[in-house]
Amino acid sequence: MAIRLTPVQKILIRLIHRDARAQLRRTLTKVHPADIATIFPLIPEQEQQRLIDVLFEQRLAGKTLRELPVAFLREILESMDDARLAEICQRLSPDDATDFLGHLPTERADRILSAIRGEIHDRLTELLGYPPETAGGRMTSEFLALQDTMTVGDAQVEVRKNRELDNLFYVYVVDEAGKLEGVLALRELVLQDPDVPIQQIMQRNVSKATTDTPQEEVANLIAHYDLLAIPVVDVDDTLLGIVTIDDVVDVMREEATRDIYQLAGLDLEDKVFTSPFRSVRLRIPWLFLNLLTAFLAASVIGLFEDTIAQFAVLAMFMPVVAGMGGNAGTQTLTVMVRGIALGELELKGARRALLKEMVVGILNGLSTGLLIAVAVYLWKRNLYLALILASAQWINLFLAGFFGTLIPLALRRFKLDPALASSVFLTTVTDICGFLVFLGLATLFLQHLV
Amino acid sequence: MAIRLTPVQKILIRLIHRDARAQLRRTLTKVHPADIATIFPLIPEQEQQRLIDVLFEQRLAGKTLRELPVAFLREILESMDDARLAEICQRLSPDDATDFLGHLPTERADRILSAIRGEIHDRLTELLGYPPETAGGRMTSEFLALQDTMTVGDAQVEVRKNRELDNLFYVYVVDEAGKLEGVLALRELVLQDPDVPIQQIMQRNVSKATTDTPQEEVANLIAHYDLLAIPVVDVDDTLLGIVTIDDVVDVMREEATRDIYQLAGLDLEDKVFTSPFRSVRLRIPWLFLNLLTAFLAASVIGLFEDTIAQFAVLAMFMPVVAGMGGNAGTQTLTVMVRGIALGELELKGARRALLKEMVVGILNGLSTGLLIAVAVYLWKRNLYLALILASAQWINLFLAGFFGTLIPLALRRFKLDPALASSVFLTTVTDICGFLVFLGLATLFLQHLV
Repeated sequence: MAIRLTPVQKILIRLIHRDARAQLRRTLTKVHPADIATIFPLIPEQEQQRLIDVLFEQRLAGKTLRELPVAFLREILESMDDARLAEICQRLSPDDATDFLGHLPTERADRILSAIRGEIHDRLTELLGYPPETAGGRMTSEFLALQDTMTVGDAQVEVRKNRELDNLFYVYVVDEAGKLEGVLALRELVLQDPDVPIQQIMQRNVSKATTDTPQEEVANLIAHYDLLAIPVVDVDDTLLGIVTIDDVVDVMREEATRDIYQLAGLDLEDKVFTSPFRSVRLRIPWLFLNLLTAFLAASVIGLFEDTIAQFAVLAMFMPVVAGMGGNAGTQTLTVMVRGIALGELELKGARRALLKEMVVGILNGLSTGLLIAVAVYLWKRNLYLALILASAQWINLFLAGFFGTLIPLALRRFKLDPALASSVFLTTVTDICGFLVFLGLATLFLQHLV
Repeated sequence: MAIRLTPVQKILIRLIHRDARAQLRRTLTKVHPADIATIFPLIPEQEQQRLIDVLFEQRLAGKTLRELPVAFLREILESMDDARLAEICQRLSPDDATDFLGHLPTERADRILSAIRGEIHDRLTELLGYPPETAGGRMTSEFLALQDTMTVGDAQVEVRKNRELDNLFYVYVVDEAGKLEGVLALRELVLQDPDVPIQQIMQRNVSKATTDTPQEEVANLIAHYDLLAIPVVDVDDTLLGIVTIDDVVDVMREEATRDIYQLAGLDLEDKVFTSPFRSVRLRIPWLFLNLLTAFLAASVIGLFEDTIAQFAVLAMFMPVVAGMGGNAGTQTLTVMVRGIALGELELKGARRALLKEMVVGILNGLSTGLLIAVAVYLWKRNLYLALILASAQWINLFLAGFFGTLIPLALRRFKLDPALASSVFLTTVTDICGFLVFLGLATLFLQHLV
C-alpha cells in the first residue's frame, strides 16, 4: 500500500510540529490509531517523542504503537522509560502487552513485568510462558466465556457487562470446570428468544487450537473454516484464550514474507529500514554459503582448464547453460514451495508433481536448447558447438525440474521448512551439472570444435 | 497446511467408494463444506462425480465447490452440465456465483447466465460487469442496509428477518436514496436499548471502497483498520455491496503468491498440478527473456576471448563474481519488493533505502571479497588474480545493492508492479557488470597474471 496521507493526517503533522498540544489532543481522538501510527516514521525523532507524550496522556499510546511495523516499534520502545512502558502494558489487552514485552531485551522485559502488579502481572507472566509463534503465544485472554446453565437472556446481560471487550464475535460456553463445550455466534443473541437455554442453540463441534499449535496452522484453520476467532485450550480442554482474525491476518503476511525471504536467504528481521550493519550481519551467512558452492562450481570448471585454453569460446557459453538451469529450476522450486505452503500438495501427490516437472524440464530444455543451437550456429558457424550447447541445455533443464521438485519435498520429509536454503542447493546442482555436462561434452568432441 | 484426514473424512471416502448413498447423505450434513472439499482431489474421477451428485441433492454442491483450489475447481466445473451449474449459481451467494462463472469460458458463462431468470440474473449480470480484481469484482450484494429513520428495535427485527445472511458483522445505515451514511456493529444491537434511534449510535466515519478500488488496497484497508467487512459504494456514495474478511484472506494469499511468483517469472495460473503443457506455455516466455540476457552476457565475455585463451584460469572464477552479485542483488530486491507490498516504504523513504543498500553492498562486497582473495591466493598462489577478484566482487556487490533497490523503485514510479521482471533486469546487470569488471581488470593486468 502506497502511503497517501489523508487531510486529517496532514493536520496532525502540522499540529505536532507547532507543538499545539490542546488542538493535537482534540484531533487525535478523532483519528483511527492505525492512521496515527502511519505518520510516526514521517516526523523527526523529537516530534515522535512529543506525539508519544500526548498519546500517553490521552491513553492512546498502546493502541497506536501496536500498529507500527516491528522494526520501528522496537526503536520507539527503546526510547521510552520503564515506568511509562509498564503503564502502557497495563492498559493494553494482554496479547498486545506481551507482544510489546516480547520485542524488548529479556532483562528489560522482566524489569517492566515486575513493575506491574496484581492480576495483570499473573496473566502476562502466563502468556509470556508460551513460545511466540504458537497459538499460546498469539492468544489473548480477553474473551467471554459463559456457564452452560445460562439462557440467551443471561448471555445478553453478560455481553452488556463486558462491552469493553474488543473482539466479541463469539461467546464460548464452558462447564463448571472451565472446559470448552460449545460456541455461539454473537448474532444468535440477537436472533433468539431470551429464555432459550444457550446449551440448546450452541454449536458443539468447535474448531479449536491447543496452546502449542503452530501459528501457521492456526491461520490455516481460521481460513479453512472462515472463522473470526478460534478458541485455544489446554490438554484438558480448558478454555485459556482466543486467537482473533486480525492477528491471523498478520500471521499470514509474516508467513508469506518468510516464504519469499527464505528463497533469497533472508531473515525475517531484515526489512527496508533495518540498519545497514544489522542487515549485513543477517545476510552474510547466506552469501558465504553461496560462495562455498561457487568455489565448488569453479573447481568443476578447473577440471576443464586445458579444454578452455584450447577453445576459449566455451567460456562465453558456459554461464548460459548454468544460468538457464538456475532460472528454470527456480520456477519449479517456487511453484513447489508455494504449493506446499498453501496446502495444495499432500504426500500422495509428490510423485505426480515430480513427473510433471520432469516433463516440463524436458520440454523447456528442448525448446530453449533448439533456440540456443540456432542462435549459436548463426553466430559462430560451429555446428558441434551448437549441438553440444543444445544437449547440455536439455540435460540441465531436465535436472533443474527434477531437483527443483525433489529438494523442497525432501526438506519437508525431514520436517524442515521446504523453502529453507533450497535455492542454494538447487543452484549448486544446476551450476555444477551445467558446467560438467557442457564442458565434458566439449572435451569429448574437442577435435570437432576447434 | 499438510493434509491430515479426520476420522469423518476417512468415513466419507469409504462411503463414496462403496456408493452408500443414504449413509453418505446423512454424514455429509455433519461435515464442514471445507472438509468435504479437501477429500475431492484424493478420490478417483468417477467417485468425484458421485460425490457431486449427492452434494447437489443435498444442496451442498456450491458451498463445497467454493472451497476447492481454483485449478481443480475449473476441472470440476468443466465436467458438469449447464443446467446443474445454473441451478447451483442460483442457490449460491452472488459473489460466489460470479466467481464460478468467472472460471468458465465466456461463451459458456453467458449460456448459463441466460438460463438463470429474474432478479438473480440481473444481480449476477451487474456483478460480472466489474473487473475481477477490484472491490466491485470481489463484493457480494448480500448485506443488510437499514433506513436512517429506524430505531435499534426496528434494526433487531430486520436482523431477525434476514437470518439467512451469512456475513452479518455490521449493518449499514443509508438514506432514502441508498447513500451510505453510517455503520453499526452487530454487537451494538445487543448492547443498546430498543428505542434508541440508530442514527444516534451509528459511526459516521465509515472506511469504504469504490467499485474500482484494486483488491490489494481493499485488503490493506481491512487489515489497516482491523475490519470484518468493508462497504463498496459508487461515485454517488450509493451502497452497492460489501467485501468480507474471508475474501480478503484469499486476496492476501493470492497477492503473496503473486509477489513470490513474479520474482521467478511465474504466472499465477501455474500451480503444482497444472498440466505440464500449460506450465511450459506459461513459463517459456520468461526463459526466452532470460536467454536473451544470457546471450548479452555471453557477448560481453566474448570481448575477452583472447584474455581467456591466454589465461584459462579466469574462466573458473568468472561465474563466482557474477553469481555472488546475483545472490546479493536478489536479497536486496526481495527486501524491497516485499517492503513495497507491505507498505513499509513510501516515496520519501526511497533515498534512505537506496543509501542503506549501497552501504550493505559495500560492506558485503568487502567481506566476501576479502574471503575470496584469501581463498584464491591459497589455492592458486596468484596475488594479482586474488586482488582482481576481490575488487570485482566488491564493485559488483555495490552495483547489486544499488540496482536491487533502484529497479523495483523505478518500476513502481512508472506504476508497474515492482516485482514484475525485476529479477531479470537485476541479473542482467550483475552478470554483465560482473564479467565486464572482472575480465576487464584481468585484461588490464594480464602481464602480471600469466
